[in-house]
Amino acid sequence: MEEQMEYDVTFFQQAFKKHREEFLQDYKDLLRFQTISTDAKYETELAKARVFLIDYFKNIQFSVEEWETDGHAAIFAQNLSAGKDKPTVLLYGHYDVQPVDPIDEWLSDPFEPIEKNGKIYARGALDNKGQLALMLSALKFMMTEFGELGVNVKMIIEGEEEMGSPNTIAILESRKEALKCDALLVVDLDLVSEDVPCITLGLRGLCALNVECIGSKIDLHSGMHGGMVFNPIHGLVELLSTLRDPKSGKILVEGFYEGVSEPSEKEKAMLDLQFDEKEYEKMFDAKAVGGEIAFPPAIRNWLRPTIEVNGIYGGYTGPGIKTVIPAKAYAKISCRLIDGQDPKKVQQQIQTHLEKHAPRGITVNVELQDAVEGVRANADAPILKTVSESLEEVFKNPCKYVMSGGTVGITKALQKASSGDVVMMGFGLPEDNIHAPNESFALSRFEKGFLTIVRILQKLGQKT
Amino acid sequence: MEEQMEYDVTFFQQAFKKHREEFLQDYKDLLRFQTISTDAKYETELAKARVFLIDYFKNIQFSVEEWETDGHAAIFAQNLSAGKDKPTVLLYGHYDVQPVDPIDEWLSDPFEPIEKNGKIYARGALDNKGQLALMLSALKFMMTEFGELGVNVKMIIEGEEEMGSPNTIAILESRKEALKCDALLVVDLDLVSEDVPCITLGLRGLCALNVECIGSKIDLHSGMHGGMVFNPIHGLVELLSTLRDPKSGKILVEGFYEGVSEPSEKEKAMLDLQFDEKEYEKMFDAKAVGGEIAFPPAIRNWLRPTIEVNGIYGGYTGPGIKTVIPAKAYAKISCRLIDGQDPKKVQQQIQTHLEKHAPRGITVNVELQDAVEGVRANADAPILKTVSESLEEVFKNPCKYVMSGGTVGITKALQKASSGDVVMMGFGLPEDNIHAPNESFALSRFEKGFLTIVRILQKLGQKT
Repeated sequence: MEEQMEYDVTFFQQAFKKHREEFLQDYKDLLRFQTISTDAKYETELAKARVFLIDYFKNIQFSVEEWETDGHAAIFAQNLSAGKDKPTVLLYGHYDVQPVDPIDEWLSDPFEPIEKNGKIYARGALDNKGQLALMLSALKFMMTEFGELGVNVKMIIEGEEEMGSPNTIAILESRKEALKCDALLVVDLDLVSEDVPCITLGLRGLCALNVECIGSKIDLHSGMHGGMVFNPIHGLVELLSTLRDPKSGKILVEGFYEGVSEPSEKEKAMLDLQFDEKEYEKMFDAKAVGGEIAFPPAIRNWLRPTIEVNGIYGGYTGPGIKTVIPAKAYAKISCRLIDGQDPKKVQQQIQTHLEKHAPRGITVNVELQDAVEGVRANADAPILKTVSESLEEVFKNPCKYVMSGGTVGITKALQKASSGDVVMMGFGLPEDNIHAPNESFALSRFEKGFLTIVRILQKLGQKT
Repeated sequence: MEEQMEYDVTFFQQAFKKHREEFLQDYKDLLRFQTISTDAKYETELAKARVFLIDYFKNIQFSVEEWETDGHAAIFAQNLSAGKDKPTVLLYGHYDVQPVDPIDEWLSDPFEPIEKNGKIYARGALDNKGQLALMLSALKFMMTEFGELGVNVKMIIEGEEEMGSPNTIAILESRKEALKCDALLVVDLDLVSEDVPCITLGLRGLCALNVECIGSKIDLHSGMHGGMVFNPIHGLVELLSTLRDPKSGKILVEGFYEGVSEPSEKEKAMLDLQFDEKEYEKMFDAKAVGGEIAFPPAIRNWLRPTIEVNGIYGGYTGPGIKTVIPAKAYAKISCRLIDGQDPKKVQQQIQTHLEKHAPRGITVNVELQDAVEGVRANADAPILKTVSESLEEVFKNPCKYVMSGGTVGITKALQKASSGDVVMMGFGLPEDNIHAPNESFALSRFEKGFLTIVRILQKLGQKT
């Protein structure tokens, strides 16, 4: 594939223009499947999407398998015709999407993509069908234009990302051989801005728990019982207030910080820690004063674990007053965790803490929910350079290095199972409204994503 | 009326039997009015109930007035033909009732009273139409049987008790002359048990506030923002945890205990402070370990003020996890207050406390709700003896003295405006399910209530 040396980004821009309608057709076909993974009634839609993907890969000379899980199956496809002397890259995407609630706020049918002002509007337009489609388009283009990829390409497309990938993660260990690769591209993330590309060096993990405080078996009248019974809302408030030091923001759960490491010198040198507090306050009407105030905001969001109460409820919440002492009060808690923390261990530590600090007269029940590990890229991996150069060629701007406070649940498990150097990347922007009504993706970024993937494959193909 | 000396309880029991159907007819007629005061759509029902009461009083030779308020009008009736040498007693009741939700749990139409197993089932069966009807029956019986009451009787029946009496309280000061009396009987309370009567020497007051904690203008993603923004649920939790010392249960709001006095020696001697913690735990599956643990349970419930969070909510409360940092979190707070505390001042103190303790980055908004004073009977008042003797004759058991942790909002204002010695009493039991589905009142207690009121009037009539 030496002759591809001559093709630069301009050549591929022309090629994209030529194939644009075909790429968009595939993209829109994919968007029409109502692949909401968290709702069992869409199961046949997920199955239809898998059939579509299997056909797609067959048409571009990939061998393809459906990997059963205890939940939604994953699609695994590969074309290893570049041979053993060439590197192997594993691409990751997901074909499932978020629910569409609140449906009333959509300006068009979430599963009938429309093109408007250079954007595609639909559920999954970006997350992840847009990013998936630009990868698929790149593979199709390479295979039809050149008849080969120049590099060994594997791709895993799961159907459970929006539910935390529990069953997909469970099968990865047994698929180690198939997943083995040199580099793993997780294409489910964002750019810094329209013109500024970035590579994400780390994602946080997550663990979640539900807490129930029980004070009595029935709701009690605050006149008849107030002063006698211990109000479980007070119990919950006291319990939750033991989790964090209000002044420093430090989390007080014993053992919580085990495995949390400082950023390395290399990471410190690479990472763009810029954070504009004024801009943040303007955008969200919120001060960046949460978390552990000893650390700067970007570090707090990327490299420090958090504990957040995502929901709290109990008693009377309607208009006017109702002088009730409720029987129970509830909180939903989740933590964002750093690579190195064991999410199941953290759950246990929090459970132990909550049970130990149960206020008098209050029964505390803890229910463990999701638990996934955080992940960090190897800052010395050569693939980072390949990807950053490709991004810079396409975006004509230096590639930044960032981390994300968010979670792509499967990443750490994929990194382990594939033993590839992970690159977390993507072409989204906050304006794309993922997980919200009127999700969209600008076709200009779809094209840039396509170009970037093509350039990465080409560059990898030049290596031995 | 000297000849009435001969009539004892047995005589009146016979009389009740004779007039039973007529009394029940009046009682049931009253129950059929859908007098839900908190819902504007029942206004005509409240008006119909007032017409019924006006006619009732006219028929028994009472002069009667409708006292307009900014809300529902009150009925004021009097028969002062006993003359200036005889004492004047003011009876209090209310013709409004609680809403009927949850309507599905009613076994019969809440506004079509049914008689079953010696009980009347309907909304208001006890609270307060049952207690009201037994007073009205007593007055009717005295007037028809003897043609006179032997004592000057005034009666005020309000239509706003279930909404905290705000507009009724507002007119009392201007009605001082009309309300003037020697003794005020507030008949809206309970017995100790079926056979054990009591007089309630004190009721707590109440003040309520809503608290809103704002962290940002929109809900934020806990990955993208966790560690940066201060979660308003944490803000609320920290704020609420400053209100009380978790160990002692002491309320930490500056000035909160101003005006709270110890029980007097007389009160201590009279009050039955018995409290069976084991029985309480069995009944409610709740330990009596709330409030200020330095005090015994009955004192904590009767003579110590409390602060209770009646409701708390914010963020995601559905199934599974949603990693949101909500924009806002809310709590609904109410205090039970002791006679001597100024409820409006306490509201201000709590508002000041909450605003002063606002966690960093959190905007705290406080909305003041209801505020009513607590009340205590004059333990030396002669009317207590008259009432207790009457109760003992009817119930054949010693009368106990208790207090109640609950609130009858108008009592303190009526006590002030009428300058009468207040007696808080009634014939309810917890089993009557007031404010709940299938409210009922045993006709055996209706009769005992009737007998008690008749005996009280007779005894007062013997005095000059």
